[in-house]
Amino acid sequence: MSEPPARPVSHSFTTMTQFVLPSNANAMGNVFGGQILAWMDLCAAICAQRHTGRIVVTAGIDDLSFEQGVRVGEVVHLEAKVTAAFRTSLEIEVLVKGEDATRGERWSCVSAFMTFVALDDARRPTTIPPLVTTTDDERLLAQEADERRLARLARRKPGRR
Amino acid sequence: MSEPPARPVSHSFTTMTQFVLPSNANAMGNVFGGQILAWMDLCAAICAQRHTGRIVVTAGIDDLSFEQGVRVGEVVHLEAKVTAAFRTSLEIEVLVKGEDATRGERWSCVSAFMTFVALDDARRPTTIPPLVTTTDDERLLAQEADERRLARLARRKPGRR
Amino acid sequence: MSEPPARPVSHSFTTMTQFVLPSNANAMGNVFGGQILAWMDLCAAICAQRHTGRIVVTAGIDDLSFEQGVRVGEVVHLEAKVTAAFRTSLEIEVLVKGEDATRGERWSCVSAFMTFVALDDARRPTTIPPLVTTTDDERLLAQEADERRLARLARRKPGRR
Amino acid sequence: MSEPPARPVSHSFTTMTQFVLPSNANAMGNVFGGQILAWMDLCAAICAQRHTGRIVVTAGIDDLSFEQGVRVGEVVHLEAKVTAAFRTSLEIEVLVKGEDATRGERWSCVSAFMTFVALDDARRPTTIPPLVTTTDDERLLAQEADERRLARLARRKPGRR
Amino acid sequence: MSEPPARPVSHSFTTMTQFVLPSNANAMGNVFGGQILAWMDLCAAICAQRHTGRIVVTAGIDDLSFEQGVRVGEVVHLEAKVTAAFRTSLEIEVLVKGEDATRGERWSCVSAFMTFVALDDARRPTTIPPLVTTTDDERLLAQEADERRLARLARRKPGRR
Amino acid sequence: MSEPPARPVSHSFTTMTQFVLPSNANAMGNVFGGQILAWMDLCAAICAQRHTGRIVVTAGIDDLSFEQGVRVGEVVHLEAKVTAAFRTSLEIEVLVKGEDATRGERWSCVSAFMTFVALDDARRPTTIPPLVTTTDDERLLAQEADERRLARLARRKPGRR
Repeated sequence: MSEPPARPVSHSFTTMTQFVLPSNANAMGNVFGGQILAWMDLCAAICAQRHTGRIVVTAGIDDLSFEQGVRVGEVVHLEAKVTAAFRTSLEIEVLVKGEDATRGERWSCVSAFMTFVALDDARRPTTIPPLVTTTDDERLLAQEADERRLARLARRKPGRR
Repeated sequence: MSEPPARPVSHSFTTMTQFVLPSNANAMGNVFGGQILAWMDLCAAICAQRHTGRIVVTAGIDDLSFEQGVRVGEVVHLEAKVTAAFRTSLEIEVLVKGEDATRGERWSCVSAFMTFVALDDARRPTTIPPLVTTTDDERLLAQEADERRLARLARRKPGRR
Repeated sequence: MSEPPARPVSHSFTTMTQFVLPSNANAMGNVFGGQILAWMDLCAAICAQRHTGRIVVTAGIDDLSFEQGVRVGEVVHLEAKVTAAFRTSLEIEVLVKGEDATRGERWSCVSAFMTFVALDDARRPTTIPPLVTTTDDERLLAQEADERRLARLARRKPGRR
Repeated sequence: MSEPPARPVSHSFTTMTQFVLPSNANAMGNVFGGQILAWMDLCAAICAQRHTGRIVVTAGIDDLSFEQGVRVGEVVHLEAKVTAAFRTSLEIEVLVKGEDATRGERWSCVSAFMTFVALDDARRPTTIPPLVTTTDDERLLAQEADERRLARLARRKPGRR
Repeated sequence: MSEPPARPVSHSFTTMTQFVLPSNANAMGNVFGGQILAWMDLCAAICAQRHTGRIVVTAGIDDLSFEQGVRVGEVVHLEAKVTAAFRTSLEIEVLVKGEDATRGERWSCVSAFMTFVALDDARRPTTIPPLVTTTDDERLLAQEADERRLARLARRKPGRR
Repeated sequence: MSEPPARPVSHSFTTMTQFVLPSNANAMGNVFGGQILAWMDLCAAICAQRHTGRIVVTAGIDDLSFEQGVRVGEVVHLEAKVTAAFRTSLEIEVLVKGEDATRGERWSCVSAFMTFVALDDARRPTTIPPLVTTTDDERLLAQEADERRLARLARRKPGRR
């Protein structure tokens, strides 16, 4: 099978918007962390499918950090973009913002790098399109993604679980 | 209280993306109609809040028609924009598309016009910003919205429920 | 295939009752509009299946208007009945009431006309039983349904999406 | 506080209808038992609120037995009625039927007797209206409810948990 | 088919922990009864599958009584164990406790005996492993389970539904 | 305010068990990644509350990697334990296993380190009990947690978002 044609970062830019209902909240009236993680996974998965043209499965998360919360009645805005494409996997950066839609204010809520593996029709890992970076910012993100991947592989040291 | 300043259509353009899971589907593996209606209501409500700067409540739906379905594993893409602003209410057009994220295809799923009423802090209807239309297309939509509103008021004829 | 035998309106009368939990509510403690729309779709779909003896899919909504809200801890009561049967589609009127079960009070919440298409086993539109109207009220509703259908077809004018 | 006026059985007859979606099902495509129990609790609670005019909390379940299952795409039909009213609690019989809405067939799914306690505004148990039985069947059910209550109290023998 | 080998009670001890979110609560901020029943059914079903090595379906509930509630932000702790194994069915005792995880306090919430039937691959009832009781407490529970089963069969007297 | 008394690792060991229903699955019949992340967040939060005696909020995730999936009808088993306690935050290791309850087999599904911040009644970060490690394994995990924390702080280099 020949390698899929390369695709630019801009091709795989995905946004998702969610209105926060009480069914998404914890006892304090904030979106509970797990719900935001679930939305991040879905948003990044769509982004990964658009880039690879394949069904994908979540492989890992790096550097996830929560900043400010989002409350019931407010809006959660997610943005996902491909930061690096490896052989059968790719890294997606997900930025989550809270929004008060009546005031027009937004604030940082969470950011993370999520890794997905692309699967062929027999559910085996399959090669994916390379990523074409066109700006310095895109090239820097891809380089940092490589470093994160090496650190990740190094952390899986032998004898550890 | 002075009238809120006018806002252009572009200010209130809202998109929403949903990944279709089995929990959103009917027995045939399609998103069930009621789930799409629920997402349309949320997407249009965010759009209405962004334009009015107010909490809003759903007041009505006109001309809603389903075209093609969306299946589990596919993506639902919603777009909402303000078509007309009346004194305390506004009309939002919602276009829903299905998407196969792995193939990059989209198709029309549903469209409708939804009306919302803006509420002040005491939960009473309150005046909202006028809509500034800048293109012929925007002006045509606003004119049709006026006609829909008159037809709606005419249909509520006396003695009927 | 011969035409299915006619059925009276009374045959297809469907009620649904829902207890409003916080998971159905918006930030203000009311059932959010989209949840009521989802329940209306399910109640009307059962009604349409009972009349047609077929799997049905939602085709459209007309004249939907919200009146009063329903709060957490209260009850939502839905009533659906067939107002007109066309060749492969039928119109269902859905009336939604709020209820305070401890006080025995009910109030109008929403009403709408929803259209469904009946599908055969190959998922293609199929002919449905005619509707037998027996009261003046039933005949008036069926006549108005015809007018709504013509208006609906007229609104889909050429060149418009 | 004087005792609330008596109410006939017919006053407190509650039905509930649910369309079975994949989100209600187990791995075999049947409504999973816990979902039916949840619907029974809600249906019986509305019935208990209508009779007592009070907020109620679930106190117990007796003689619950499952017969036949209900599948995705079918309908669950619940009927609840008061069988006996004690001082601050009442017993509700809940009968659950499955329905194939396209074929017009119904079958027994579950039946049980559920007991609820009525609460006043301070969340303390409060006296409830007596039940007026008018048919032999109603009187038999009320008598059996008394026996179930005595057996229940007897089973809570000392030293057992 | 030869009979499955016997298994001790300890083999089939199952715990489940749930964090109470607003989506599990009623209008008063307590877990609503039906949600607890749904969790009990799932916890007992896992317990029954572990003992029988089979898919199981819920057959009945006896002696279920609610004691104290659990509020949003608190934790629900469930424990299920086999009390008796009959030919193709088994009885599971489920004890539910509320927990304030920040204070380290627990209290009794609900207890019940649930009966499940084991199914073979053709979904027919199938023989299950006998239960090996090793303590007096286990033997007492098994004996009481036999009595509950006889009482249950006796209550299904002829002519009663 | 004096510092809270130290607590051993064993004090804060939390397990959670979930039965996988179709409502937790993706189009392929596996639990979708976001659902597992949501359960991990809840399980780790209970664990963090038990150790700190405080309400906690999710602060970050490190080294999360998915191994094998879990299918509808199978069981998800989560284990969380405190690996290190800092001044106002603590790190929790979460190990997730899949289980086929009918076969008695378990396999690794996901593992991650999650960080939580403890809040006082005014929702400000507050000091938490130190962690008493008693085994070499516990001391190694705590030391690695310190390294992860330093790496995390180093990665947040200036000028990067």
